[in-house]
Amino acid sequence: MQKEMILEKQKQAADILKEKNIDLWLTFVRETGNIKDPMLEMIVGTNATWHSAFMITSKGERIAIVGSLEVANMESVATFPEIIGYLKSVKEDLVNTLKRLDPKTIAVNFSRNQPLADGLTHGMYLELKEILKDTPYGERLISSEEIVAALRGRKSETELELMKESIKLCLKYFDEVTKMLTPGISEKEVAEFVQKRVKEDGLELSWEAEYCPSVFTGPDTAGAHSGPTDRKIQRGHVINMDFGVKYKGYCSDLQRTWYVLRDGETEAPPEVMRGFNVIKESISLSAAQLRPGKMGWEIDEIARGYVVANGYEEYPHGTGHQVGKHTHDGGGMLGPRWDRYGNVPYLPIEKGQIYTIEPRLTIPGFGIATIEEEVVVTEDGCKFLSPRQTELYLIK
Amino acid sequence: MQKEMILEKQKQAADILKEKNIDLWLTFVRETGNIKDPMLEMIVGTNATWHSAFMITSKGERIAIVGSLEVANMESVATFPEIIGYLKSVKEDLVNTLKRLDPKTIAVNFSRNQPLADGLTHGMYLELKEILKDTPYGERLISSEEIVAALRGRKSETELELMKESIKLCLKYFDEVTKMLTPGISEKEVAEFVQKRVKEDGLELSWEAEYCPSVFTGPDTAGAHSGPTDRKIQRGHVINMDFGVKYKGYCSDLQRTWYVLRDGETEAPPEVMRGFNVIKESISLSAAQLRPGKMGWEIDEIARGYVVANGYEEYPHGTGHQVGKHTHDGGGMLGPRWDRYGNVPYLPIEKGQIYTIEPRLTIPGFGIATIEEEVVVTEDGCKFLSPRQTELYLIK
Repeated sequence: MQKEMILEKQKQAADILKEKNIDLWLTFVRETGNIKDPMLEMIVGTNATWHSAFMITSKGERIAIVGSLEVANMESVATFPEIIGYLKSVKEDLVNTLKRLDPKTIAVNFSRNQPLADGLTHGMYLELKEILKDTPYGERLISSEEIVAALRGRKSETELELMKESIKLCLKYFDEVTKMLTPGISEKEVAEFVQKRVKEDGLELSWEAEYCPSVFTGPDTAGAHSGPTDRKIQRGHVINMDFGVKYKGYCSDLQRTWYVLRDGETEAPPEVMRGFNVIKESISLSAAQLRPGKMGWEIDEIARGYVVANGYEEYPHGTGHQVGKHTHDGGGMLGPRWDRYGNVPYLPIEKGQIYTIEPRLTIPGFGIATIEEEVVVTEDGCKFLSPRQTELYLIK
Repeated sequence: MQKEMILEKQKQAADILKEKNIDLWLTFVRETGNIKDPMLEMIVGTNATWHSAFMITSKGERIAIVGSLEVANMESVATFPEIIGYLKSVKEDLVNTLKRLDPKTIAVNFSRNQPLADGLTHGMYLELKEILKDTPYGERLISSEEIVAALRGRKSETELELMKESIKLCLKYFDEVTKMLTPGISEKEVAEFVQKRVKEDGLELSWEAEYCPSVFTGPDTAGAHSGPTDRKIQRGHVINMDFGVKYKGYCSDLQRTWYVLRDGETEAPPEVMRGFNVIKESISLSAAQLRPGKMGWEIDEIARGYVVANGYEEYPHGTGHQVGKHTHDGGGMLGPRWDRYGNVPYLPIEKGQIYTIEPRLTIPGFGIATIEEEVVVTEDGCKFLSPRQTELYLIK
């Protein structure tokens, strides 16, 4: 299964190289047990200890140059038809292979904008420049970010099915949480419950266990990207949880919101309902505009603008990101035009990409309302990948 | 525990900065869930999503600049007394902090020679140069490799105790393997047995499960760094296993060799004994010379030279590496003067470092003999961290 998916993505990569008029894509790595290029899992399928070069050309050639001790391992993984092993230095084989292929442009695994296209460390960049210094190839290096963005973003049918299954599993845990939430238990206890259940099912979390799930109860919670605390759930709290599981290497990422009824209440107070509905509506409005050719910031502006227009504070993060083998995946995102997001909010949305939509607002005195849904981009719009949260979940 | 160990290493880092006459050590990262600087676990203790700068000065100041959403998380981790949060761009806070500290030299997390000091991606290097372009600081950047090598290499007392415990646990699994080895089972079955036992004990493997343990039985095995195969153990095989477990974040890494007696044999044939004894002796000879001030290649040459002088082929890897939070850790190694090892065989051996010694040879017709021991460097020599393998283990 893993090998077939790698071959599928390698073929897609060669097509993308042709489309973008790039001759060669070079992924240059070492000691990937310590620091791993995020593309290796998708296009190689194993680790490398010594200086290693993984090459895919627009003609579909695939060549791996690895330390001689790792040739047997590469052969058993069987994702590269041509494997070259070296003993003392990668230089000669790498230079000779480049001379043979003679690429006019070489996309290399670095990028200012996209972390997933930026697996080349600066030390390895210096090594590469040194290796190529007496050749014309050192001057032909460009960023591989366009290739990586397209390859990770455009999901194959196989990938889409895995993503759907991952979301389905994720929602199962949200349902279980709805049943166990009750006043008196802490954020940490909720998180421990979820992690225990995931472990029992033999699955992995989508991101670091420290904040997967994140659980926030009541007013005055820690910010997003904080771990759960000993804060206890109380009546009158708005609770929300941010969580995802991996299924066969593909991540889900969803958020849901609950309200804990106070004595005598049968529904949430108007200000809580209003906050929840603003979130729900901002997702509907932005999803309605999400389609190929739009830029991420345009979609962000719709969701963000609606939240702000309703008198809430602007949320300090993007409206959505792509999801795939990593929770934060792909190239473009639905983000605001802030420096810290570089060029990614300006990348056009493409068919086959999967985005989260996750606006956020604080309901003063009650807590944080968020919903996070996942959508797949279609020919002329987008489709939700699971039933949406349309009602606030009430805890008695 | 984790926090105390981080504070201990941060203090050691400040002392090393002073010793090396470097004003500031800057670790610059982003999206560490995707690609993680290998130093974060040791000096920060959590992840970072947006452009983040972790700074330690020779005066002992520790300043973290992170995205505003992650300030609460950094506060709860509590390893940096000064935490600065930014909303849109890291630039202003980073430049202002540098102006305030005004360092003459800034060690940054990149290195040609040392992967563990090379967590800065090339894209992030370009970002950093851009951020600093109107300041004098862009010209003051040097590699942090000397700091990282010293900090990871020189183990504290606490670290040494954890390393010893890790080795003790590791040997327990070797003992269990000695009891279960028998003709007819495959390399994969041995590996699965070990992994199952480690899982039952709630521990983690020292390196990737693909080849932890590596198991090689008989002649014509795959090379080192290959995963176990379906090859079955037979009488007359030399078997060896390369394996390690992590204990509280610290790795062990050992190898042991067995021989499967043929019908009628009560001991291994002379050529097997000879191969085993050459390995054992080459470890004794090299360990006897291992002490502060020697260079790694000098020790490599002793072990390698002894194997070659006895008529065996030269092994295609270094004689030993440092061990710590990673299996391949620290700066210097006991490696030959080959291009692929860069400057690391030339780094002086220091007190408190922990090295493996792991020569290797092929006994034609029988299999591979290896022993891997771990030693800690003392004031004037080195000490083995566990009982050595002095006898070939015989399987009936």
